Amino acid sequence: MPISNTPSSPTHNARADGRTATQLRPVSIQTGFTRYAEGSVLITLGHTQVLCNASVLDKVPPFLKGAGRGWVTAEYGMLPRSTHTRSDREAARGKQSGRTQEIQRLIGRSLRAVFDLEALGERTLHLDCDVIQADGGTRCASITGAWVAAALAVRRLMQDGSLTTNPVLDHVAAVSVGLVGETCLLDLDYTEDSSCGADVNVVMTGAGNLVEVQGTAEGQTFGRRTLNELLDLAEAGIAQLVEEQKRALGTL
Amino acid sequence: MPISNTPSSPTHNARADGRTATQLRPVSIQTGFTRYAEGSVLITLGHTQVLCNASVLDKVPPFLKGAGRGWVTAEYGMLPRSTHTRSDREAARGKQSGRTQEIQRLIGRSLRAVFDLEALGERTLHLDCDVIQADGGTRCASITGAWVAAALAVRRLMQDGSLTTNPVLDHVAAVSVGLVGETCLLDLDYTEDSSCGADVNVVMTGAGNLVEVQGTAEGQTFGRRTLNELLDLAEAGIAQLVEEQKRALGTL
Amino acid sequence: MPISNTPSSPTHNARADGRTATQLRPVSIQTGFTRYAEGSVLITLGHTQVLCNASVLDKVPPFLKGAGRGWVTAEYGMLPRSTHTRSDREAARGKQSGRTQEIQRLIGRSLRAVFDLEALGERTLHLDCDVIQADGGTRCASITGAWVAAALAVRRLMQDGSLTTNPVLDHVAAVSVGLVGETCLLDLDYTEDSSCGADVNVVMTGAGNLVEVQGTAEGQTFGRRTLNELLDLAEAGIAQLVEEQKRALGTL
Amino acid sequence: MPISNTPSSPTHNARADGRTATQLRPVSIQTGFTRYAEGSVLITLGHTQVLCNASVLDKVPPFLKGAGRGWVTAEYGMLPRSTHTRSDREAARGKQSGRTQEIQRLIGRSLRAVFDLEALGERTLHLDCDVIQADGGTRCASITGAWVAAALAVRRLMQDGSLTTNPVLDHVAAVSVGLVGETCLLDLDYTEDSSCGADVNVVMTGAGNLVEVQGTAEGQTFGRRTLNELLDLAEAGIAQLVEEQKRALGTL
Amino acid sequence: MPISNTPSSPTHNARADGRTATQLRPVSIQTGFTRYAEGSVLITLGHTQVLCNASVLDKVPPFLKGAGRGWVTAEYGMLPRSTHTRSDREAARGKQSGRTQEIQRLIGRSLRAVFDLEALGERTLHLDCDVIQADGGTRCASITGAWVAAALAVRRLMQDGSLTTNPVLDHVAAVSVGLVGETCLLDLDYTEDSSCGADVNVVMTGAGNLVEVQGTAEGQTFGRRTLNELLDLAEAGIAQLVEEQKRALGTL
Amino acid sequence: MPISNTPSSPTHNARADGRTATQLRPVSIQTGFTRYAEGSVLITLGHTQVLCNASVLDKVPPFLKGAGRGWVTAEYGMLPRSTHTRSDREAARGKQSGRTQEIQRLIGRSLRAVFDLEALGERTLHLDCDVIQADGGTRCASITGAWVAAALAVRRLMQDGSLTTNPVLDHVAAVSVGLVGETCLLDLDYTEDSSCGADVNVVMTGAGNLVEVQGTAEGQTFGRRTLNELLDLAEAGIAQLVEEQKRALGTL
Repeated sequence: MPISNTPSSPTHNARADGRTATQLRPVSIQTGFTRYAEGSVLITLGHTQVLCNASVLDKVPPFLKGAGRGWVTAEYGMLPRSTHTRSDREAARGKQSGRTQEIQRLIGRSLRAVFDLEALGERTLHLDCDVIQADGGTRCASITGAWVAAALAVRRLMQDGSLTTNPVLDHVAAVSVGLVGETCLLDLDYTEDSSCGADVNVVMTGAGNLVEVQGTAEGQTFGRRTLNELLDLAEAGIAQLVEEQKRALGTL
Repeated sequence: MPISNTPSSPTHNARADGRTATQLRPVSIQTGFTRYAEGSVLITLGHTQVLCNASVLDKVPPFLKGAGRGWVTAEYGMLPRSTHTRSDREAARGKQSGRTQEIQRLIGRSLRAVFDLEALGERTLHLDCDVIQADGGTRCASITGAWVAAALAVRRLMQDGSLTTNPVLDHVAAVSVGLVGETCLLDLDYTEDSSCGADVNVVMTGAGNLVEVQGTAEGQTFGRRTLNELLDLAEAGIAQLVEEQKRALGTL
Repeated sequence: MPISNTPSSPTHNARADGRTATQLRPVSIQTGFTRYAEGSVLITLGHTQVLCNASVLDKVPPFLKGAGRGWVTAEYGMLPRSTHTRSDREAARGKQSGRTQEIQRLIGRSLRAVFDLEALGERTLHLDCDVIQADGGTRCASITGAWVAAALAVRRLMQDGSLTTNPVLDHVAAVSVGLVGETCLLDLDYTEDSSCGADVNVVMTGAGNLVEVQGTAEGQTFGRRTLNELLDLAEAGIAQLVEEQKRALGTL
Repeated sequence: MPISNTPSSPTHNARADGRTATQLRPVSIQTGFTRYAEGSVLITLGHTQVLCNASVLDKVPPFLKGAGRGWVTAEYGMLPRSTHTRSDREAARGKQSGRTQEIQRLIGRSLRAVFDLEALGERTLHLDCDVIQADGGTRCASITGAWVAAALAVRRLMQDGSLTTNPVLDHVAAVSVGLVGETCLLDLDYTEDSSCGADVNVVMTGAGNLVEVQGTAEGQTFGRRTLNELLDLAEAGIAQLVEEQKRALGTL
Repeated sequence: MPISNTPSSPTHNARADGRTATQLRPVSIQTGFTRYAEGSVLITLGHTQVLCNASVLDKVPPFLKGAGRGWVTAEYGMLPRSTHTRSDREAARGKQSGRTQEIQRLIGRSLRAVFDLEALGERTLHLDCDVIQADGGTRCASITGAWVAAALAVRRLMQDGSLTTNPVLDHVAAVSVGLVGETCLLDLDYTEDSSCGADVNVVMTGAGNLVEVQGTAEGQTFGRRTLNELLDLAEAGIAQLVEEQKRALGTL
Repeated sequence: MPISNTPSSPTHNARADGRTATQLRPVSIQTGFTRYAEGSVLITLGHTQVLCNASVLDKVPPFLKGAGRGWVTAEYGMLPRSTHTRSDREAARGKQSGRTQEIQRLIGRSLRAVFDLEALGERTLHLDCDVIQADGGTRCASITGAWVAAALAVRRLMQDGSLTTNPVLDHVAAVSVGLVGETCLLDLDYTEDSSCGADVNVVMTGAGNLVEVQGTAEGQTFGRRTLNELLDLAEAGIAQLVEEQKRALGTL
């Protein structure tokens, strides 16, 4: 196992915003942000803000017609000026980028990993994750926020009697971790993300099991020991995010 | 001139939300809503909320290359669950609807009517109007909010010395008016808009001149006298919106 | 109310083609221009020529399935070399422009304003308005011509017994008016349209009620008094166009 | 060589419209049909009508930039209600069908076969062939009419001194022939085309050389002797069409 | 009939690869090239290689629903680096070129000419012709190879009892012929194809009847005598290709 | 750390094709598969076959113009009948799926991780990975094969003197691993992939460093210990694939 690419202990390094390497940015999960969606959440991580709306649709995709099961899916978008410089509007260009499609597939898979689709019944939970302001970590914030929006929509279905069994099996939340120079950092902002040598997006359940691990060398390949160190960081961060989800739902 | 289709005086009719026929919904124009755009405004009219971001781009469309003039343009979008029931995401469908294109062309024309494009210099002011929550009147709110976002971006260009002559010639604001039954109403919400017999979107300058008048019979044609009554209502409403614009900019 | 932007009396100004300010271009409405459409009309206004074909389709859009009502809709196109210089073919570019969509939506709404859709029964009247030669005013000519094509198609349905109640409630016709310098002009040709400060497309019924008013400042905002003067001009012009429609149908 | 599939002599068979097997439909080539195109022709063959407009563009496709040669190209379209029942508008569907692309490629190749592209200079002759009414044979009528429109545009360039050498080397014209039952027919109309066993579109020069031969078995394969009989028919028909081209241009 | 453009006897001219004018390139038809398709063939002609896969689908196009007949259709594609220099990937560009559509329509028509669609029953034979390496003649190779793939798929349907009557009425194969200088050549490779004055793609049945003849002047128009000489060459070449088809199927 | 989801030792479990849990499928890397690409490889893993062609293009993407550096990018496609049942052709549907885009982005990133783009100079290495036959693991096979194709293209550039410094810094190869029931398996085939509870695609350098880790729970979340066990398996498999790459290049 390679040793040379193992970073030294990062905990004493201060970051541009004063955080330690192992600190999340300030998190807030505001429920009821818009009034029409069955579940609506604005999740904020530092300067990153994502509006997550859950819609309950009384239909399922064609491949599930008549199967007695439901579906959970997601779409993702960035407002053109959520970013430091303006990006093209995907609707105007006439197609979603590969990045957008990759992210919305990831959000959908992550949510489905903790849903009992049979208990959901023949309906679709459609999550719309729209980035209002982007400072890194939007895909992870989308997952963490979308889970709360989905839980709110399910709560409403339980309350009005449409559902009798709760289809939500566990929490799911996500965070990015990365290697900047020799240091492992939790919850990268945009500047850190742009300059990191490698990053990993980690999606975990409330019980601490892995749902997705997406590690990518961005100019710096990394060894198994670094990966483990990064996953340790992510595990701790996700545990805090799950606490925030519970606080937002009042289930703490 | 037809008389039979002239509505009687509407001012004593109460509306679902308690307004009189001649009353605007509660308005708020929040500046600095996001941090990266050169001008950022969240405009709220009752339950309608539109985020208007102005970006300053150091380029102009091909037809203006080298002409020494600038350009002001706009794009419009609705978040899929801004509405009572979820709409398709235009980026996913792969094209903008006719309605979307019509609205963004209207916003652009309205702003350009009060801009001195030569004074703006060879740059583009790009306005992004994204509807967070839709309860009627989103195109008018977009115009009113976009003007403030544009004014903020221009103020920044003046402050950093990029501009020496202010290219903003006047305010521009917009409101919808409509005929519900025999009554002329100011500032229609979604329910009123859906049930009205005719509506007019009116765009006016601060000086009270017309920029756009878009009147449409929705099942009920209307006479010239009704049109004039509707325009009177709009004129009064727009004067109030211009006051709100001044308040938001601190120029009152 | 602003006075300074009120134009002086225009009636003594001669125009490039010798018309007075209040004169329409020579109009002709030729029926039966093509042989397969249920109603086919070539409408000519000066050099502007639009072929309006009405097709009767035994189906309705999805949102009307089983509702017992019909639908009237329109599509619009310009032949690539209908214009002074060649324009791109929209089919080759792979999409209709925002302008095209705006116009075809306008034509459809205008026609529906004078149709009893229940009397039409569960069928669609599809109007195709294709511009053979364009010298300004094509959207207005399309509306005026499409109404005649639709009336011809309805006449055929009445004659063969498919319809017993006439679903056509009134005439509908349209004309553009504009402010060139200080003068209000009726029925702008391309050169006038390009140089006007403001124009208004007006759609009215045979009874003289308004269906659509689309006024746009093109570099010159305008007061309420000017708007009224323009509408007076339009009203007179539309009355003549309705006469031409009657002449074409032999109902004068 | 197969004998069994050789048809017997067809000349005594009358057709639905009274023509003999070897007769063209009535032809007319009307020049100056629209006023803005550099060359404009309405060609009529029986009920088939195609508007052929030639535009002179002062540019060439990228692959010819700076090569000192010109280009001749074509686009083709059918008005939605040119046909017996309404077809979809290609601009609305967002793409041109395979058939449309095949036809416009054929028209372009056919014209280029009789053009000296060096003599044309660095400009493009763009032919727009739009079918006003379709009763079979539209691609052949497009070629025959487009050649006249192109010749008119060239004549104008010669007259204003833009060209000194005539780049038109010869006439080109086209006709369809087909096998209906055992009979070879010239110039198929829509009904004959739909029921024929095989058809051949033939493009020839004024000198009688072949430019394109597109023979297709539509349910009935055919022998070499039949092909020769069909080509004999086509050759005679094309000679007549070339006469009509000369008559239209006044060069007979 | 023109004489001057008739080429002299070509048989003594050697070609770049040493073939005589009347010689095919080395042919091989390898069956079972991939394992999942119901029929799979790699056809090689010199350096040209096309993978032809036949899929049996238990559905028919909408226009055949319930008609008790089947359908045979084809799609064609070139791998981006099948060619001497890389071409764009059509899936990435978002549309198939006009050439691609023309070719796949040709393959489909050619196959259907020798299929009894009623005997096929309500199913579709879908042929995918993908060019692995392109050195001219890919459309003809596709037809010749696709017929073998289709025959293999039908054989399997006969063997498992899904079909009792063989729907394959005859062989179909294709070859290109062309005029290079004054010489008629059989089976053009890419270099010959690029420099030829005219070429003809010929599709024939095993019985020697014509299915398609697509002759195109590429800079050099041609007389009837030349066409006949070219067709003689093609007829001989196709007879050899039919032998190869039989050899591949073991039916020789 | 969770213990319950740790699988027991898998090594004694036989798989459908007789492999042990830790065995790769038979691998072959055939160079020179097609003749025009600068590097051409057919990589086979069991029944999976991917054709990887490297093209050297003398241009770079716009964002690198004049930067003195090169680019390595990839495109991916599946032949429609590479799969057990036919899939739609992406070129015919008019867009690449989200999955396709995700994979081609992954291949590009993986290759770039071992390339010195400055040493490559201002040119692009374009890798086309086209799946001829798909039995699972196509994205991993694409990476492993594309690296060899790229190395062959670079070798040619070195040999002809276009490059003096070798821009290839290390090998890169990839393999999938997955959790089927309680067993960790190396190199999943299609059936295993469809039924696994979680899988990880692992991309590593020849030196054993990680380039990408993409782990996904497919119905079964997994603990850190399982992840480590899966990565151990992958590491061993990739070492063997690197051996095969060396064998193919003759550098072993």
